[in-house]
Amino acid sequence: MNFPSKLIEEAVIEISKLPGIGKKSALRLALHLLKRDETQTQLLADALITMRTKTTFCRKCHNISDAELCLICTSPRRDASVLCIVEDTRDVLAIENTAQYRGLYHILGGIISPLMGIGPNDLNIESLINRMEQEPEIQEVILALSPTMEGDTTAFYLQKKLKPFNKKISTIARGIPIGGDLEYADEVTLGRSILSRIAYE
Amino acid sequence: MNFPSKLIEEAVIEISKLPGIGKKSALRLALHLLKRDETQTQLLADALITMRTKTTFCRKCHNISDAELCLICTSPRRDASVLCIVEDTRDVLAIENTAQYRGLYHILGGIISPLMGIGPNDLNIESLINRMEQEPEIQEVILALSPTMEGDTTAFYLQKKLKPFNKKISTIARGIPIGGDLEYADEVTLGRSILSRIAYE
Repeated sequence: MNFPSKLIEEAVIEISKLPGIGKKSALRLALHLLKRDETQTQLLADALITMRTKTTFCRKCHNISDAELCLICTSPRRDASVLCIVEDTRDVLAIENTAQYRGLYHILGGIISPLMGIGPNDLNIESLINRMEQEPEIQEVILALSPTMEGDTTAFYLQKKLKPFNKKISTIARGIPIGGDLEYADEVTLGRSILSRIAYE
Repeated sequence: MNFPSKLIEEAVIEISKLPGIGKKSALRLALHLLKRDETQTQLLADALITMRTKTTFCRKCHNISDAELCLICTSPRRDASVLCIVEDTRDVLAIENTAQYRGLYHILGGIISPLMGIGPNDLNIESLINRMEQEPEIQEVILALSPTMEGDTTAFYLQKKLKPFNKKISTIARGIPIGGDLEYADEVTLGRSILSRIAYE
């Protein structure tokens, strides 16, 4: 593209480094900011810098936090006997939004993926083991990982690692999504939903 | 959403003010920046601020520019006898990328849209009239506006305004896109493409 301005070009290059934003979208965003008041750009830039420099990770669960311990780990209303293991912060937000879970979390910071060169040592697994040792109140560990090859590999690895602690280990249910149409479900999901059928009580 | 950090929440609010970016995408972008090196966020913020504060608009054609006159207006290799009128900078970039046009531009900064409360006085039309008076080298004006109701209204208005100058006025061809399938063309476009058919020479 022949940009009419070097400064626009530099902004577009930086914006398009963000995931899912190509050159054309980046240009659209840059032109949008140019049309708006200068304070909007200033607020955006400030918010990004403050977020990047001031946020930290919770010492206990590795969730993003403004303090040494996050709001969930410090809340007296959470059930410390259940620990939910997730890949990243977005999963915590997704589970929190369901309002169905009152326990604590442990964020792995990724999943085991030999293709991407991510092994167990790149994840927050050592600190998970430490927590299992130091928090005897934990009675159950829920593995809430995506049902993909990498997620299953990670779950398998964690099961082995957690076995010595003799706690209940579970995984989130896999099956037909609520509101989903049987006809359009893939065979693997449908097959697993039959195998792990739930009896009426 | 229950954000784990006030700072993230503020960043998400600012990011989601950008067009086409919702809360979920904004969060994804924020988390991406948190995972990357701090310098990436710094570079992005700097590029945005510099772009917003340092770029200006070309005094002549109203294109975005780093100087008082833009690179196109000052180029000795452009054909000053043709003036192409477009809605905004993105249209200039799109036309420049075709490498089919060597003339100059005039950017309206929008199109007439009564619904959005945008009238002729909100656009760079007065400066266009001034250019027509001060640049006798202009022999043809091409109206390159979108073939929408607003674009057609604006084109009609400009035709009336430009008529007194007695120059050739044209519009970009409307028809079936190259590579497009007749079967899937809408009736209006197909109808117009028959009416304005091109004779083989």
